[in-house]
Amino acid sequence: MAVIVQKYGGTSVADIEKIQNIAKKVMQKKAEGNDMVIVLSAMAGETNKLVQMADSASGGTPNEREYDMLVSSGEQVSISLLSIVLNSMGYKAISLLGHQVKILTDKIYTNAKIQSVDTGVISNELKKGKIVVIAGFQGVDTEGNITTLGRGGSDTSAVAVAASLGADLCEIFTDVDGVYTTDPNLYNKARKLKKISYDEMLSLAGAGAKVLHPRSVELAKIYNVPIYVKSSFSEDRGTLVTREDKDMEKEVVSGVAYDKDQAKITVVHVPDEPGIAARLFTPLSEQNINVDMIIQNASSEGYTDLTFTVSQKDIDEARRLLDVVAVDMGASRVDYDETISKISIVGVGMQSHSGVASKMFKVLADEGINILMISTSEIKISCVIKAKYTELAVRVLHDAFGLDQEN
Amino acid sequence: MAVIVQKYGGTSVADIEKIQNIAKKVMQKKAEGNDMVIVLSAMAGETNKLVQMADSASGGTPNEREYDMLVSSGEQVSISLLSIVLNSMGYKAISLLGHQVKILTDKIYTNAKIQSVDTGVISNELKKGKIVVIAGFQGVDTEGNITTLGRGGSDTSAVAVAASLGADLCEIFTDVDGVYTTDPNLYNKARKLKKISYDEMLSLAGAGAKVLHPRSVELAKIYNVPIYVKSSFSEDRGTLVTREDKDMEKEVVSGVAYDKDQAKITVVHVPDEPGIAARLFTPLSEQNINVDMIIQNASSEGYTDLTFTVSQKDIDEARRLLDVVAVDMGASRVDYDETISKISIVGVGMQSHSGVASKMFKVLADEGINILMISTSEIKISCVIKAKYTELAVRVLHDAFGLDQEN
Repeated sequence: MAVIVQKYGGTSVADIEKIQNIAKKVMQKKAEGNDMVIVLSAMAGETNKLVQMADSASGGTPNEREYDMLVSSGEQVSISLLSIVLNSMGYKAISLLGHQVKILTDKIYTNAKIQSVDTGVISNELKKGKIVVIAGFQGVDTEGNITTLGRGGSDTSAVAVAASLGADLCEIFTDVDGVYTTDPNLYNKARKLKKISYDEMLSLAGAGAKVLHPRSVELAKIYNVPIYVKSSFSEDRGTLVTREDKDMEKEVVSGVAYDKDQAKITVVHVPDEPGIAARLFTPLSEQNINVDMIIQNASSEGYTDLTFTVSQKDIDEARRLLDVVAVDMGASRVDYDETISKISIVGVGMQSHSGVASKMFKVLADEGINILMISTSEIKISCVIKAKYTELAVRVLHDAFGLDQEN
Repeated sequence: MAVIVQKYGGTSVADIEKIQNIAKKVMQKKAEGNDMVIVLSAMAGETNKLVQMADSASGGTPNEREYDMLVSSGEQVSISLLSIVLNSMGYKAISLLGHQVKILTDKIYTNAKIQSVDTGVISNELKKGKIVVIAGFQGVDTEGNITTLGRGGSDTSAVAVAASLGADLCEIFTDVDGVYTTDPNLYNKARKLKKISYDEMLSLAGAGAKVLHPRSVELAKIYNVPIYVKSSFSEDRGTLVTREDKDMEKEVVSGVAYDKDQAKITVVHVPDEPGIAARLFTPLSEQNINVDMIIQNASSEGYTDLTFTVSQKDIDEARRLLDVVAVDMGASRVDYDETISKISIVGVGMQSHSGVASKMFKVLADEGINILMISTSEIKISCVIKAKYTELAVRVLHDAFGLDQEN
């Protein structure tokens, strides 16, 4: 008998019929003798509806505590509905909100981080033979205020619950049926991976693959919780996200990711003094603008160029800040380019194989694709290119590294 | 400076625009220096939508704990929206759920009774200058499970909060603008009352006037909380529900109520033995069927007839039970009549005026309306008549007791 945590996303609980389908999956595993803990998102569309209400009620800047109070109501609906279905089918089930569990977070409304998950109530209900259905995406701070975990937060809830319980498996059911070598919508030769390491998954997620929220993978890595990603609409085998093992290292590159939601900013001809990076990036980070790739060109005659990328949604705010800061710093001008994308190849095998980067550059060059920025880590190489070449770049890299064939 | 509790019903918070209108009312009173505590229902239609989901998920008999978890989400939406609006208009506001307040109830899911309201959190937030917005209809049991208070529960929440805080006033904003001498939709001579006593209000509510939930009036009476009932859509003066005073006693009759949702059941020719009433009514009460008027005819030759009324929704269940019980008891047959209604006249002044009952009977007789059952209390006389005479009876009684004219 195992303890299994399953998480179902919004499209999996979009209506009563879909919830009844989930219930069947849950009951089957329960009937096999497993202790079942289910974590749910809100019904598809509900969170967006609530967010729109908050915007409409506030003119776009809702009080954050109250925003969390509002949007957390979506999960309350889905968990109680699943629990009603399970009970009416003869299984004992109990739904629990974040504060009832208790999933303790910090006090950062709309983007709280889980600090601990109390397993007392869950274990107690499991002992009574109940299926425990937990609201994802939400927690509670030390003062009893409801907090939410930000986009993708239900994945994080599931992994945190699984980690705390020492669950044998954490299954994440979503609207894709696993992790692919690249986006199957973009390239039909994309192949589903049987297994992927936490680090590769993080690199893919950070590079734009939207299967799992990065925070959930980080948490899974720390607590060594194996995550099985699969579709809630098919019986197909999914992808196991787990620790690195020998098998994985055989594959040099496991995936090609892309991110079109990128904008490039260049602060041109800044006096090259100590502290310029800090002066530039501090105001951005204070406004919660995440800077991704950063390149500082070699200084010539006491001046330098600083190039970096931000999310496209942040470009207006960044422009507002930089128009002031860059002038203060003595830069000659700031260039903005929203017509770019980021292409990354990811693989733990890279660490022990040379020539992967140069192969990537050559493949792109052979297609006449100019590389605007490069950044590398142990298991990832990312290139910024013109956005119009995105699909072409994904296809040629996927072919060049033989990703359509199983190793 | 006063502490004012205001309750707004579902139609008053039906959309963002209506919530913004409420916010203006609240801010005005706050700006006048009052401490404001607001209790809200769910947005109009939301609770029904959730109830339908529960039925659809369960085939009609949802697990009651989970049902409460589901339907209580509606108030979470309305309170956070009002709080968002107030904050965005520059007022400090905080929304609180039943368990955050904490509104402690018993463990009777779907129909819980409030046992206590902790004023600690509310008072603390009021001291910080905040407007406190509380979810009506919901509470929490000693184990942290969410409970709901049943239909009209938000009125009860408001009065319980007002009583606990020792509030100076409890204003109930609803879609009617006060308490009338009779239903204005039924008779256009109906007149709005300036004041009514708790007991009269209870008699009216029990007799079918749907302005305030009886439990909220009972609670208001016990704790002597004055309730001011008024419309959220107009500035008209409403009706004050309060203790009896000398003014009230001048009016012999203050209102005519009717209830068409009644069915009459007669158990014919039962052997008249001790305990027959108990044998008859125990199975009904065990199925939560409320019996209203009961009449036992004088026994003749060791046999008696028992007549009583139930709600029309309970008639099928009552029939199922009585078909067994009445036979067991040796009754010759059971008659059912769903074509009846109950007409009541209510007034504290009745206690000191004789002849009110006989006047009522005569007025009805003059119109050829046959009285099928009669029941009386200190401040109410009720007659069961054929349903088709309901409107006529209301009009002639209203005229006969001069209710269209102010005293």
